[in-house]
Amino acid sequence: MIQYKLIYFDVRGLGEVSRQLFHLTGTHFEDIRIPRNDEKLWKEFKKSTPFGQLPVLKIKDSISETEIEIPQSSAIGRYLAKKFGYSGKTPEEEAMVDAVIDQFKDFLVSQKQLTLAFRSEKSEDEIKRIIDDVVNPAKKIYFEALIKLLVKSPSGYLIGDNLTWADLQIADNLTTLKGFGLFVSSEEPILSAFHQKIMNIPELRSYFDSRPLTML
Amino acid sequence: MIQYKLIYFDVRGLGEVSRQLFHLTGTHFEDIRIPRNDEKLWKEFKKSTPFGQLPVLKIKDSISETEIEIPQSSAIGRYLAKKFGYSGKTPEEEAMVDAVIDQFKDFLVSQKQLTLAFRSEKSEDEIKRIIDDVVNPAKKIYFEALIKLLVKSPSGYLIGDNLTWADLQIADNLTTLKGFGLFVSSEEPILSAFHQKIMNIPELRSYFDSRPLTML
Repeated sequence: MIQYKLIYFDVRGLGEVSRQLFHLTGTHFEDIRIPRNDEKLWKEFKKSTPFGQLPVLKIKDSISETEIEIPQSSAIGRYLAKKFGYSGKTPEEEAMVDAVIDQFKDFLVSQKQLTLAFRSEKSEDEIKRIIDDVVNPAKKIYFEALIKLLVKSPSGYLIGDNLTWADLQIADNLTTLKGFGLFVSSEEPILSAFHQKIMNIPELRSYFDSRPLTML
Repeated sequence: MIQYKLIYFDVRGLGEVSRQLFHLTGTHFEDIRIPRNDEKLWKEFKKSTPFGQLPVLKIKDSISETEIEIPQSSAIGRYLAKKFGYSGKTPEEEAMVDAVIDQFKDFLVSQKQLTLAFRSEKSEDEIKRIIDDVVNPAKKIYFEALIKLLVKSPSGYLIGDNLTWADLQIADNLTTLKGFGLFVSSEEPILSAFHQKIMNIPELRSYFDSRPLTML
């Protein structure tokens, strides 16, 4: 019997794809969400994490009596995706799925500057500057890469004929960008159709409807 | 018959781990290095890459007559490591190897600020500021994570009992940091022993001795 515990903050962010993989497959897991503003709890907890960061996936095998902890969101996501069959059907598909994830993570470096500016309550001018100089140029490269994959995909998924964790990751990030006004459906018909397709996955509907609403 | 072509700039950087995996396993590949200062050649080439970036791995299978191109350095590295048996021996080891790679990539975001400052010939003061405020705090987190893994590793490798591509990636990055004066052997005995161990891999010696000397 394997018990999963996913520990992350109370946002979608870097934990959401792993949560979705559990819900998608009906796999029981403990969804532990540490309140972002509870700095005392996080400080306490931080010491016990492998790399001093979240998310962390704890896996307890009650038969072999082993417990392991995996840090880093993409490492966790890839591990679960592989286990549940959402990492791509061939080594080459897996590599392309990984490339999409890496492209997302490259973009995230720029997006993070914006979210940090919001969190530290920077001026409207400063936020506009970050959007214009940092986020939008990075978004252009990112969106172009995604659109290039989608226009040649008969399935409507980013890679191959089946849903992968890259689809979940990108759709979730589009949700975030939509909230910031940086992904406007009417301006991006191809990405918008993709976003809709993933948001309508029947196995995820009830989770999408019941999860906490957060900006990130 | 499979033909590999790795296309990257004429530095170690994001292409080096894949090159090392080829040399380690004695797998023939074309090591195409585009001169960093040949902007015309790169501009020409850029259009034909999957995501407008390097490295790119081209794989041509002369039997099935297929050709694919994989972008993104970690996706390429993981693909080759899996193929050649250097990605970890279990799904859990693979996840930890991936986590180390992600930790390295997190650090790289900070290191990049420094290398960009060097390339754009910023003042000594500005470079010192980036080292103090950006690189050193990120390096502290990164080194602590690596040391935590190494002190509990009987094999001396980062993950498990065998060499993985995470070892190659981290050792190569330590070489780079050494060149910048940011990794001083006498200050980091554990990382230094690890670095030496990887630099002494017999199958890589002749490549290490013959490759072009570059800062990155």
